[in-house]
Amino acid sequence: MAKKKMHLVGFMINSPMCHSISSWTHPRDRVGYKWTEPEVWQEVARTLERGKFDALFLADVMAPFGKYKNRMDEALRYALQFPTHDPLVLIPTMSVVTEHLGFAATASTTYNDPYTLARRFSTLDHLTKGRIGWNIVTSIQTNEARNFGQQEMPSHDVRYARAREFLEVCNKLWSSWEPDAVVMDKENQIFTDPTKVKAINHKGIFFDVAGPLCCAPSPQGRPVIIQAGASEQGRDYAAQHAEYVFGLQLNTAGMRAFSDDIRKRAVKKFGRKPEEVKIMYGIQVILGHTEAEARAKQKMMADLVPFEGAMAILSGHLNFDWSEYDLDAPLENIKTEGVQGILDAMIGMIGGEKALTLREAALMHGRSVSMPQVMGTAEQVADQMETMMDEGGGNGFQITPTYIPGSFQELVDGLVPVLQKRGLHREEYTGKTLRDHLREY
Amino acid sequence: MAKKKMHLVGFMINSPMCHSISSWTHPRDRVGYKWTEPEVWQEVARTLERGKFDALFLADVMAPFGKYKNRMDEALRYALQFPTHDPLVLIPTMSVVTEHLGFAATASTTYNDPYTLARRFSTLDHLTKGRIGWNIVTSIQTNEARNFGQQEMPSHDVRYARAREFLEVCNKLWSSWEPDAVVMDKENQIFTDPTKVKAINHKGIFFDVAGPLCCAPSPQGRPVIIQAGASEQGRDYAAQHAEYVFGLQLNTAGMRAFSDDIRKRAVKKFGRKPEEVKIMYGIQVILGHTEAEARAKQKMMADLVPFEGAMAILSGHLNFDWSEYDLDAPLENIKTEGVQGILDAMIGMIGGEKALTLREAALMHGRSVSMPQVMGTAEQVADQMETMMDEGGGNGFQITPTYIPGSFQELVDGLVPVLQKRGLHREEYTGKTLRDHLREY
Repeated sequence: MAKKKMHLVGFMINSPMCHSISSWTHPRDRVGYKWTEPEVWQEVARTLERGKFDALFLADVMAPFGKYKNRMDEALRYALQFPTHDPLVLIPTMSVVTEHLGFAATASTTYNDPYTLARRFSTLDHLTKGRIGWNIVTSIQTNEARNFGQQEMPSHDVRYARAREFLEVCNKLWSSWEPDAVVMDKENQIFTDPTKVKAINHKGIFFDVAGPLCCAPSPQGRPVIIQAGASEQGRDYAAQHAEYVFGLQLNTAGMRAFSDDIRKRAVKKFGRKPEEVKIMYGIQVILGHTEAEARAKQKMMADLVPFEGAMAILSGHLNFDWSEYDLDAPLENIKTEGVQGILDAMIGMIGGEKALTLREAALMHGRSVSMPQVMGTAEQVADQMETMMDEGGGNGFQITPTYIPGSFQELVDGLVPVLQKRGLHREEYTGKTLRDHLREY
Repeated sequence: MAKKKMHLVGFMINSPMCHSISSWTHPRDRVGYKWTEPEVWQEVARTLERGKFDALFLADVMAPFGKYKNRMDEALRYALQFPTHDPLVLIPTMSVVTEHLGFAATASTTYNDPYTLARRFSTLDHLTKGRIGWNIVTSIQTNEARNFGQQEMPSHDVRYARAREFLEVCNKLWSSWEPDAVVMDKENQIFTDPTKVKAINHKGIFFDVAGPLCCAPSPQGRPVIIQAGASEQGRDYAAQHAEYVFGLQLNTAGMRAFSDDIRKRAVKKFGRKPEEVKIMYGIQVILGHTEAEARAKQKMMADLVPFEGAMAILSGHLNFDWSEYDLDAPLENIKTEGVQGILDAMIGMIGGEKALTLREAALMHGRSVSMPQVMGTAEQVADQMETMMDEGGGNGFQITPTYIPGSFQELVDGLVPVLQKRGLHREEYTGKTLRDHLREY
C-alpha cells in the first residue's frame, strides 16, 4: 500500500518571535532583528519552496497580551507575538520571489468588514497567481476589542454568528462575477460583459452589502478557507466551511479525537466528503545530527524561556489572569471559583496533564504554545511524524520554527529528503495553486 | 537664479484603465490585459525609478460608478476605473524591486477603521524602508456607501469630521512608541522597553481606541500625508495636515489660485511654513518626436474615448446622473433646477469653459479626467511644464499615463533628460525615504 503523503506548512507570525517565546533570543535567530524588512521573509519563503512545502501560514493578533497582572509589560519586554505587523501586506514581498508556495493569512471577522476583506483576498489571489488562503478567526482577547471601540469582546455566540454571516457575504461577493465575465475585447470596447456581473444586495443582521465585488474573478475564485476552531461552534464552522483545519493537540490521542470529530461533523452535518477537509496539526521540530544534539538544542531553547513571559502568554491565550493562583500546586488542585472552564481549557492545551503545576504548564506553553515538540535525528523525527499521521488521523503538519530562518533550512536540508525517500512528501509540485497542493493527496 | 526643480510622480490606479478612459483599448497598452499580475507593475516601478520620480501614486474607488442612468453597465463595459483591486497589497510587489521610488496609496477614512489602517501603513513603511505615503480621501460616491452598510454617503460635514478624528487617532497611534523603544537586547531578554510604549486611550465621537499600536516605530515614523481636497473643508484639511497636496486644475490660472489658497491657509490658519506643503498638479503628457506626431497621438486617443463611458465617469465623479440633460446646449444654458452647485463643480472641473456643451464636457473629462493634456516634443512639453510651475505656483506634477507602460518609458527616456539638462529634475536621488524626496527641494 502506498503510504499517505503529508502536507507540510510553515507556521509563523509577522513578529520578532514565533510560537516559541524565546525564539528571538536564540543565538542563531535572525528574524528577531530583521523581521520588519522583506529580505529575511523572502529567504524563508524560498527555503520552504525549496522543501516543496504547501504553504507558509501567518498567525495574527492585533494588540499586546494584557491580561497577566492587567498590564502589557511582559508582552512588550519578551516580544510575546508583539509587535505584530500586518500579515496581508507582507505576503506579496514573498509571493513575487516564489512560484509554487502557498500563503495563508489570518484575518478576523470580528474586526474587519466583509467588502474590504473579500476585495483584499481577491487581489492577493491575483497577485500570488492563485496561492492565497484565509485563516478565519474570531479573535480571542480583550485588548483587541479595545482597539476597535469595544470595552469587552463580543460574546462567543455573537462572534460566531458574525463570522458565519461574514463568510456568507464574502462568498456572495466572490460569486458576483461569472468566471468568464471579463472579455477584454479592445475592438468593440468591451472590457467586462455587464450581463455577467450582479449586485448581491445582501441584507443581514450584521451586514448590508450591495456588491458586486470590485475585483475580476481570481485564479482560485476565492481563497482557500482555513479555520482553527476548537469550541463547539468553532468545530462546526470548520467542518462546514474549511478546506484546511489547523489543529492544536499535544498528543496523538487528542489528534485522533479531533480528526474524527471534524470529519464526522463535515460528513454527517454538512454533507461534505471527508477528503474535502484537510487537517494539519501544529508541531515544533527540533532536529539534530544525533539524538544527543537534538536533546541539547531542546534544552537550550527551554532554558531561554522567561517564566514571566510564559505566564503572560498563557494568560493572554486564555484571556484570563493567572497571576494570583498558586504556581506550585498541581492544576487539578487549583481552586477555580467559577473559572473551571478556563482551567479545563488550559489543561486541554497542555495535553490533559493535570498533575503539572501552573508553573510547569506556563513554561511548557511558553516553549511551543501547545504544539508537541518532535525531537531527534531526521530519521527519528520522520518516524514520529509518520506515527502521528497514522494514529492522529491528520493530513499533515504546520511546523513552527525555533530559530529563523535556520531551523527551516535544517528541515528542508535534513528532514525533507528523508520524508521524500519514504514516499511521505512530494518530490515536485504537481499543481500551481494552493488549492491544487491541498488536493494533490 | 537656480531654477525651481519639479517633483514628478506617476499616477495610476490598480485597474485596467488609468485616468484616460480609453487607455486599456490603446493598441500599445499592456496594463489593460496584465494589470492583475505583479510583473507589469514591477516594470512601471522600475521605469519610474530609472526616471528618478519621487513616487508612484495609486488612486482608489471601492465600487463601480453607478449614477449614470442609475446602472453600472457603462462602468463595467468600459472599465471605468473598474474593476479596481486593492492598492495596499500591490505596493510590496513593486517596493521589493526598487530602492528609492516612493509609493502613495489612497485609503478612505469613511470606510476604514483607524487601528487597522494605521497598522497597515506602518507595516508598509517598514517593508518599503520608509517609502510610503497615504492619500487620505473621504470617498465620493453612493455605490461605495452601499458596500458598507449605508444607503447614502454620510454628509460632507460628517465625512470630514470623521476624517479629522481618524487622522488624530492614527497620529496618536504612530506616536505611541518612543522612537528608541525597541531595544532588542538578547542577553537581558528585553525586546521592547515597556516604559517607552503607552496606551493612547482615545475616546472621541467616532472612535474609541486604547492602543498602543502593534507596530514598532517605522523608518518614517508615519506615512507621508497626502490630500486632494477641493472643497472648503477639504482645503483646510490639506492645509493643516498634508505634506503633499494633489491638485486638479485645468489651467495655470486655476493652479495659481489653488496654490495661493492652500499656502495661505497653511500659514495663516495653521502656522505652517509654506515649504512644508508640496503641491503637485495632475497632468497628462503626450509626447512625440515631432509636434505633428504628438498631435496625431492625442487625436487617436481622443477618438478612442467612448461617449457613453465619458458620460458615466463624469456622472460618477460628480455623483449625479447627467443622462437626462440636453447634451448639445452650452453648459451655461442648462436649466439646473436645484443642482446649480453640481453644474458649477463640473464647469470648474473643465477649466471654467461654460460655453462647452455637456457632450463636449463629457468627452473632455473622459480623455484625461480633468487633468490638462501637455502635448508636443520633449522640449515643448518641458517648456509648458516650466511655465505651469512658474505661473501655477505648484511644486511638481502627478503624471497620468496614456498607454502603459509605454508612455512612462517615453517620459523617462525622452522628457526626463530634457528636464535634467535644464536643471528642473534631479539627476540622482539624494535621500532614501519618500519624505526625503519631497523635502529635497
